[in-house]
Amino acid sequence: MSVIQPFAEVEHQRAVFPDGLLLDCGVHLAPVNVAYRTYGTLNAARSNAVLVCHALTMDQYLAETHPLTGKPGGWELLVGPGLPLDTDRFFVVCANVLGGCMGSTGPRDLREDGTPWATEFPSITIRDMVRAQKLLVEHLGIARLLAVVGGSMGGMQVLEWAATFPEAVFAAAPIACASHHSAQNIAFHEVGRAAIHSDPDYRAGQYAAHGVIPAQGLGVARMVAHITYLSEEALTRKFGRRLRGANAVTFLEDVFEVESYLRHQGSSFVRRFDANSYLTITRAMDYFDLAAEYGGELRNAFAGKDTRFFVCSFSSDWLFPTSESRRLVQAMNAAAARVSFVEIKSDKGHDAFLLDEPEFHQALGGFVAGAARALGV
Amino acid sequence: MSVIQPFAEVEHQRAVFPDGLLLDCGVHLAPVNVAYRTYGTLNAARSNAVLVCHALTMDQYLAETHPLTGKPGGWELLVGPGLPLDTDRFFVVCANVLGGCMGSTGPRDLREDGTPWATEFPSITIRDMVRAQKLLVEHLGIARLLAVVGGSMGGMQVLEWAATFPEAVFAAAPIACASHHSAQNIAFHEVGRAAIHSDPDYRAGQYAAHGVIPAQGLGVARMVAHITYLSEEALTRKFGRRLRGANAVTFLEDVFEVESYLRHQGSSFVRRFDANSYLTITRAMDYFDLAAEYGGELRNAFAGKDTRFFVCSFSSDWLFPTSESRRLVQAMNAAAARVSFVEIKSDKGHDAFLLDEPEFHQALGGFVAGAARALGV
Repeated sequence: MSVIQPFAEVEHQRAVFPDGLLLDCGVHLAPVNVAYRTYGTLNAARSNAVLVCHALTMDQYLAETHPLTGKPGGWELLVGPGLPLDTDRFFVVCANVLGGCMGSTGPRDLREDGTPWATEFPSITIRDMVRAQKLLVEHLGIARLLAVVGGSMGGMQVLEWAATFPEAVFAAAPIACASHHSAQNIAFHEVGRAAIHSDPDYRAGQYAAHGVIPAQGLGVARMVAHITYLSEEALTRKFGRRLRGANAVTFLEDVFEVESYLRHQGSSFVRRFDANSYLTITRAMDYFDLAAEYGGELRNAFAGKDTRFFVCSFSSDWLFPTSESRRLVQAMNAAAARVSFVEIKSDKGHDAFLLDEPEFHQALGGFVAGAARALGV
Repeated sequence: MSVIQPFAEVEHQRAVFPDGLLLDCGVHLAPVNVAYRTYGTLNAARSNAVLVCHALTMDQYLAETHPLTGKPGGWELLVGPGLPLDTDRFFVVCANVLGGCMGSTGPRDLREDGTPWATEFPSITIRDMVRAQKLLVEHLGIARLLAVVGGSMGGMQVLEWAATFPEAVFAAAPIACASHHSAQNIAFHEVGRAAIHSDPDYRAGQYAAHGVIPAQGLGVARMVAHITYLSEEALTRKFGRRLRGANAVTFLEDVFEVESYLRHQGSSFVRRFDANSYLTITRAMDYFDLAAEYGGELRNAFAGKDTRFFVCSFSSDWLFPTSESRRLVQAMNAAAARVSFVEIKSDKGHDAFLLDEPEFHQALGGFVAGAARALGV
C-alpha cells in the first residue's frame, strides 16, 4: 500500500451547469462543474476578457499561491499588473479543464449513485473541454473574448476555440502546440498510462475506494513526461552528469543528480494529481486531430473566420517542434486567416512557455495589446 | 503475481575463466563465464577475427535463429557469407556482455553459497565488459583483432577496446554511439529502472526466488526505451495515427496501433530478458564517460595509438545524434588518429544500425575490407 498521501481537499471557486454537456463520445454529462479563477476586472463593455487555457498538469491557479501546493501560480510571470497579460487592463479567466482534478467535473467526482466516476468517467476530447469553458464564459456574461491564449494542451484548446466558436474569439494565441498529437507523443503518453495501469495500487481505477493512490505508476508517468518537457541542453545544464555527493562513480542508486530530480518530480506530482484524470486528459490530447474534424483539411478549420492568430514555438522544443507550428501557419495562410508567427530561440525545451523567456513574453504581450487596440479596449 | 513465464533455459556455448576479473568497482569477480558465438573460420595466421560488440538488449546470436525466441539473429543483414562482415573471409565473434542474461556471468548466476547474485551482483562498467571479452579473445588464441565493431552500447565497447587494448585492435568501428551517456539518456534509463523497482513482482530483486518476474515494470522500461530507438518519422510511418479496427475514435484502451505495438514490444521482451541484468547494464551505460577515464580530455583516450577508426551515425538518431559522433571524430583528429566518418541519411532513428540500410552496410563492409587489405588478410 502506498504511504504517500494526497494533499487535503480544498474548495474551488466554480460554476455549476445542471444541464451539462453532450460530449463528442455521445454521452450527455450532467451536471457539469467548471472551477475557475479570474484576475483583474471585467470592463463595462465586457470586451477585455482574456481566457487562458491551461496545459496537461497545470490548473486554474495562474497568478496566486496554489491552495494545495503552496507554490506560486503557473503563469505568474505573464499574468498580473503591468505584465504581458496585464490585469490592470484585462480580465483574465482560467478554468480547470473538464476531466481535471481541481474542481471541474472529472473522474474523482461522485455520480448520482454516490460512487466516484473513476474509470467510468466518459472519454472526453479537447473540444469537450472547450465546450465546458464556453459555458463558463457565457455564465460570466462574455459574448466575445478579446483573446484566448494557451501553451501545449492549452494551445490545442486555443485552436479548438477558434475553430468551433470563431465569433467568440477575437484573437487566439496557440503556443508550443500542434494541430494533432504525433505518434511519438502518443507513444510517450502510452508509457505513462501503462505505468499507472501496472501499479497494483491502481486497483483497476478504484484506488480511492481502497484509500490508496497509484503513486509509483503516476510517478513514473510524470518522470517520462518531464523528460519530454525539457531539452537535452536544459537537462545537461541543470545536471550534466554531475554525481550526488561523490566525485567518482560510487555505484549506488540515485548516483546521478538528474535521477534524484526526476524521482522528486514524480513523487511531488502524485500528491496533487489524480491518476484517472491523468489517463482521461492524456487520452484527450492523443485524440486531438483538428484536421480530421474538418474533412481531413486543416485549412478548413480556419476558413471564413475572422480570428487573428499569433502562433509561437520554441527552437529547442522537441515535443511540439517548430515544424508543427509552421504547419499550423501554412494552414492558416491557406485559409487566408490573419496570422503572425514567431519561433523563440530558447534552449529550455517545451517547458519554455512556462519559464522566464522575455522575448516570448514581449511578443505575446504585444499581440494581446494589439488586439485590444484594434477592439478599442 | 505475474502470469507471464520466461522462456525455457538453454545451454549457451561458453568459456569459463576461473581466475575471473578485477572489476572497476574493486570487486574481484570469479569465476567469470563468457558465452559467445562464432561465425566463419579463424585463419592460420589468426589475423581475420572480427569482434562484434552487441547492444543493450541484443546478445551473441548474430547470424542464426535465436535459441530462445526462434527469431532471426540480431545482425543477419551484416554477418554471413558474402555480407559486409563476410564469414567466408572473416572469423566473426560475438560474446554476451558481462552482466547479461544469455550465458555470461550476470545477476541470474548463482554465487558460491548457491543463491543467485540478484541485486548483489557487482556494479560493472563498459570497460569491465571489454575486459571479459579480452579474456575470450585470448582464449581463442587471437592476439590482435582485425576489427572491433558495434552499435549503440556496442559502440561504447568498441571505443573502450581501442582505448584500453589498442595493440589488440587494428581497426575499430563505433556506430551510433557517443563518448559518454547524456543527461537525457540517463534520464530515460532512470524511468525504466523506476518502473522495474515499482513493480511489486520485483520483490526487491529476489523475484526468481519467488517464482515471478517483474513483467509489468520491465515491459514499461522496454516501451520507453523503444520509443527512443525510433525516429518520429519511423513511428509515424509505421503507425501514424491509425486506429485499430476502427475508422473513428472509439474511446477504448489501445485504440492507436502504436500503443498496441509498444505493449507487444514490452510483453515479448520480458520473456527473454532478466530485470536485474537490465538494471546492471543500463547502469553500465550511464556510467560510461571515456573522457573521465583519461583526465577529462577525450583526445587522450586515442593519443599515441595506431588503431584506425570508422565512426558512423544516422541522421534521424536522436538518442545518439550525429553531433556526438562528430565530437568523437574531433577528439580522434586532435589525437592524430586515423579516422573516417560518415553520417548515413536515414529516417529510421537509432534502430537504423540494426535495419536494412544499404549505404551503412556498404560503408562498414568497405572499412573492414580495407583493414583486411592493409593487414594482408
